[in-house]
Amino acid sequence: MKKFLDYDLIQHAKFLFPFCRSLTGEGVRSTLNYFESFHKELVRLRYPSGEKVCDWQIPLEWNIKDSYIQHIKTGNKYAEFKKSNLHILGYSEPKNEQMGLKILKKNIYTEPNQPDLIPYVTSYYERNWGFCLSENQKNNLPEGDYKVFIDSSLKKGFLDMSHAILKGEKKEELFFSSYICHPSLANNELSGPIVLNAILDYVKSKYPKPKFSYRFVILPETIGALAYISKFKQILKKNVIAGINLSCVGDDRAYSHVKSPYGDTLADEALSSALINLPNFKEYSFLERGSDERQYCAPGIRLPLCTFCRSKFGDYPEYHTSGDNFDVVTESGLQGSLDVIKSIIDAFEICLYPLTKVIGEPQLGKRGLYPNISRKVNKGEKHPAKIRKDFLQYADGSNSIFKISKLISVPLSLCVDEAKTLLSHDLICDKKNEE
Amino acid sequence: MKKFLDYDLIQHAKFLFPFCRSLTGEGVRSTLNYFESFHKELVRLRYPSGEKVCDWQIPLEWNIKDSYIQHIKTGNKYAEFKKSNLHILGYSEPKNEQMGLKILKKNIYTEPNQPDLIPYVTSYYERNWGFCLSENQKNNLPEGDYKVFIDSSLKKGFLDMSHAILKGEKKEELFFSSYICHPSLANNELSGPIVLNAILDYVKSKYPKPKFSYRFVILPETIGALAYISKFKQILKKNVIAGINLSCVGDDRAYSHVKSPYGDTLADEALSSALINLPNFKEYSFLERGSDERQYCAPGIRLPLCTFCRSKFGDYPEYHTSGDNFDVVTESGLQGSLDVIKSIIDAFEICLYPLTKVIGEPQLGKRGLYPNISRKVNKGEKHPAKIRKDFLQYADGSNSIFKISKLISVPLSLCVDEAKTLLSHDLICDKKNEE
Amino acid sequence: MKKFLDYDLIQHAKFLFPFCRSLTGEGVRSTLNYFESFHKELVRLRYPSGEKVCDWQIPLEWNIKDSYIQHIKTGNKYAEFKKSNLHILGYSEPKNEQMGLKILKKNIYTEPNQPDLIPYVTSYYERNWGFCLSENQKNNLPEGDYKVFIDSSLKKGFLDMSHAILKGEKKEELFFSSYICHPSLANNELSGPIVLNAILDYVKSKYPKPKFSYRFVILPETIGALAYISKFKQILKKNVIAGINLSCVGDDRAYSHVKSPYGDTLADEALSSALINLPNFKEYSFLERGSDERQYCAPGIRLPLCTFCRSKFGDYPEYHTSGDNFDVVTESGLQGSLDVIKSIIDAFEICLYPLTKVIGEPQLGKRGLYPNISRKVNKGEKHPAKIRKDFLQYADGSNSIFKISKLISVPLSLCVDEAKTLLSHDLICDKKNEE
Repeated sequence: MKKFLDYDLIQHAKFLFPFCRSLTGEGVRSTLNYFESFHKELVRLRYPSGEKVCDWQIPLEWNIKDSYIQHIKTGNKYAEFKKSNLHILGYSEPKNEQMGLKILKKNIYTEPNQPDLIPYVTSYYERNWGFCLSENQKNNLPEGDYKVFIDSSLKKGFLDMSHAILKGEKKEELFFSSYICHPSLANNELSGPIVLNAILDYVKSKYPKPKFSYRFVILPETIGALAYISKFKQILKKNVIAGINLSCVGDDRAYSHVKSPYGDTLADEALSSALINLPNFKEYSFLERGSDERQYCAPGIRLPLCTFCRSKFGDYPEYHTSGDNFDVVTESGLQGSLDVIKSIIDAFEICLYPLTKVIGEPQLGKRGLYPNISRKVNKGEKHPAKIRKDFLQYADGSNSIFKISKLISVPLSLCVDEAKTLLSHDLICDKKNEE
Repeated sequence: MKKFLDYDLIQHAKFLFPFCRSLTGEGVRSTLNYFESFHKELVRLRYPSGEKVCDWQIPLEWNIKDSYIQHIKTGNKYAEFKKSNLHILGYSEPKNEQMGLKILKKNIYTEPNQPDLIPYVTSYYERNWGFCLSENQKNNLPEGDYKVFIDSSLKKGFLDMSHAILKGEKKEELFFSSYICHPSLANNELSGPIVLNAILDYVKSKYPKPKFSYRFVILPETIGALAYISKFKQILKKNVIAGINLSCVGDDRAYSHVKSPYGDTLADEALSSALINLPNFKEYSFLERGSDERQYCAPGIRLPLCTFCRSKFGDYPEYHTSGDNFDVVTESGLQGSLDVIKSIIDAFEICLYPLTKVIGEPQLGKRGLYPNISRKVNKGEKHPAKIRKDFLQYADGSNSIFKISKLISVPLSLCVDEAKTLLSHDLICDKKNEE
Repeated sequence: MKKFLDYDLIQHAKFLFPFCRSLTGEGVRSTLNYFESFHKELVRLRYPSGEKVCDWQIPLEWNIKDSYIQHIKTGNKYAEFKKSNLHILGYSEPKNEQMGLKILKKNIYTEPNQPDLIPYVTSYYERNWGFCLSENQKNNLPEGDYKVFIDSSLKKGFLDMSHAILKGEKKEELFFSSYICHPSLANNELSGPIVLNAILDYVKSKYPKPKFSYRFVILPETIGALAYISKFKQILKKNVIAGINLSCVGDDRAYSHVKSPYGDTLADEALSSALINLPNFKEYSFLERGSDERQYCAPGIRLPLCTFCRSKFGDYPEYHTSGDNFDVVTESGLQGSLDVIKSIIDAFEICLYPLTKVIGEPQLGKRGLYPNISRKVNKGEKHPAKIRKDFLQYADGSNSIFKISKLISVPLSLCVDEAKTLLSHDLICDKKNEE
């Protein structure tokens, strides 16, 4: 079995890009198959159409083979599904009908402010049909009658998702979630599940016997999260101590933290400490939520979870358009996101509540732990000796390593390195672990 | 019995304006009589002169029939009580004496910075006499001898006040207090008790069987509040969960919140949420106190109470002068204040601790609760759908509706409307009420 | 026995200035002898070389009789210990050797940015020798060979310190610490122990039977604090309720507060309230620590302690150079520091948790406690009547007098005066003392 991390992350993304994913259907299943081929731990879950999940109901399964509009007079085809699956309004009913351009246009969706891009539009919970075109494409449609052809089906079927649980020494779980329900969109779709699978790979290989347990879920947004909560509510509430929802984690332009409702969970602490000093770091309140934190953090479940994005959904120009492609998502973008999560996992596994074992300041010199004073330090950077001493001062067992990182304004990854060094010299221990 | 709210509020104010109120005396009793004629719930309390109340003592009762100064040579009268009761220094001793202008002037009070206005001055706890004139009036007094005439009396009598208690399902009380002790001043006197009587009327008619109990008191400032506390301390400390002192609530120029000592009571939460987005809203710390919050919030009693003003006492130019009249106080000013308190009462009665009853986000669409997306929203205004979702997210049973209002930056009145809608669809309940 | 406060503080400083202090040795003992000659309560403690204290070890004892470098050709001497004890690198090994200028210069330390000043340098934990000169002195050394002469000794001996304990009614202790380990430096050495001895004198004479217990320690920085902690850890953790480390308290240019790790101790409250409105007041976070707060506040001991400086160590240009002399330290500087600590001690002894004994506002007038309204108040200053009323409002027994001072923005010394007045009229009591 080849490992997920044996490939560039962008390779996975490019392979999965053309699949036509939606809330339900073959596109979802093929995508899940792909991930499961790398991880035997991923287990498929399915919910039949009509099942009640929380306050919602699983919709009919939607599949589509082809769709286009065809100018009768010239025979020219437009908005061809086979050229871009964004051309079809998500969950469109089947159609095979002739109509004039004026009537057709009522079912054509464009984004006039971005006249070259095809917008991404769906109609999950109201029966409808339609085509998405760029504003320019729409304006260039020749006058006359058109054949409207949609070879889709809406039938009782299933909503599919996969999850993986890695059991650790403790029952306490770290929870990672991302979504698959968008067709050919790179950042607002594929980046999330791909980074999630990379994390899964990382935990398996780096921590084969982890201290903490890990839960990974890949599911259609909103309805999928509700279905998952509906089934696992008790265990999630009991075990999850920190969760991160991954959304739009593939571009390299910014780092964003969408906070939990009160911004005070261990997950918020973890993510914000991991993002210290990263370029274009921005914090968003829960009022600016928009992904599955809406479900995981809602009253009645309130998991300690926040959302991690690079450029936040809705805040980058290509969002929900055909521009969300591999000009936006890059290997370095995906790897940068993975690095953030790695530092968080390392922190949990290595030393979550550091406690200095000596009274007063330790004598670093006799242990060779006093970093060379003459080392040049760039402006605005802290000297390694200062980091070490500050870390030790706040390692009093009451602060998570994330909190220490924030208190001393040192990025989490450097704090984790510091913890490793100090552990190896028996100068600190992990307080919670000792108990 | 005609209802208080059957009249314009300004009508009540104009009727009561000429009465000569002070700490004690007939002016106070007539004013209380007037309010009691609308509310059988209002009960008179009286404290005899000399009674010890907290650290103070009830003063002698002061009454006055007439007063003026008369230029002997011309017979012209000045500072006539019958033209304005502001002309007499409050609690002036009786006097019938002749004196030169120079000596007389030592007992004339003016406000040189506002040369056309008569200032309002009193001498409750030190025996004195005097007249208040505008600076210009004083400067125009002709030279010569004057007859000084004050037909007042200072005798053992009573300090009067009225209170009303409306019993609700719960013993927990909302407490409203305002004062009567100033003569012809419109904002810093009549606005308070008039809005208070309007609130009393509102509760009686809107919530004939209220959830909460209500306590209303109208009393002379400071000594009245101390007398009331002295008698009802135990019950106030036990039952009052939120109190609002009403002072200067009749002009339409600003909205002010004078906070409790730590600014952290349910009353502070309530008032500040009700004032969100109102024009010229200003918060004042308790260090800027000046009305009966000084007594109600003092150590040993510390009621959870704050003070509501429009333009705050001391912060508007007409304060404590003859300019505080019906150029300042308006019907829309009084009504605006009443609306603020109405929204607070509605919040208590309708749903104090909203709790969303579903897990995850509810499906609003199927209930017709998803507000029309295409509704135009003014700049800076939140879309109704956004308000609804934000409200539901923070309705976790741990936040008062006031707190939710603050968390989502939506005025209390809109939150109350939201709560009504969601209650009617059984999507929320009132957590504290369920217990 | 003459009292310490019978002399100007600067006289003590000038007398002690020439002594050659270091971590250990005769200079330390002579200095301690001097202080003990004023205070029989001061008890000597000594730790033998090699003893383990916390994570450290007591070093060898260092003594020095003389040192210089001598130009062979001319016989001229430079860097003479007898002219300034800053010329010798602290803890230099003995030496009697001839060498060329080029080689000698490798062991000469200067501060090129302050070319006229001799820097202060030590090498406690690494065997070394060297001389400190001004940059200009170094550059003017004539070419040729030099005799290097250091008549020092490094032998098993002792680390010395003194402490005094004044027992009060309560076991709870106020703790004051300062250090002696620097040779001829005025601010960053002598100011601390001299102000500490002045405080000791103040407590003894002003509060011969104090409410609280007091602990004073004078010890070599870092290793001394660790040694003290090592011996008294249990009792310090149990009894100390507030501690202040004194460092650089002799100049008159600023007031500085280096906070405890979380800035939330009673000591932080006390010091910051005592510094309200003082000129050039600055707060520093614990991240900017540098004196014995590093040991007293470290994990495993975490005393509720902060550091008080005038110009903070490291933040004034003369720090650690021959410029740190009596141009920097002045009598008014030392007295200003003493006044700050006096106000803190008075606060503890007079009324730590003021509680107003009446309900509602007290009637100040009848007690002659209503300060004359007409008293002129400078701009930005609070009127005494306002201070009195604000103090009474926050004297609810839940706030220390330090907290009240902060809440009402009135310097601690004024609050202490206020407390005295109100105690004498039986309007407040000390809540914690009543219990």
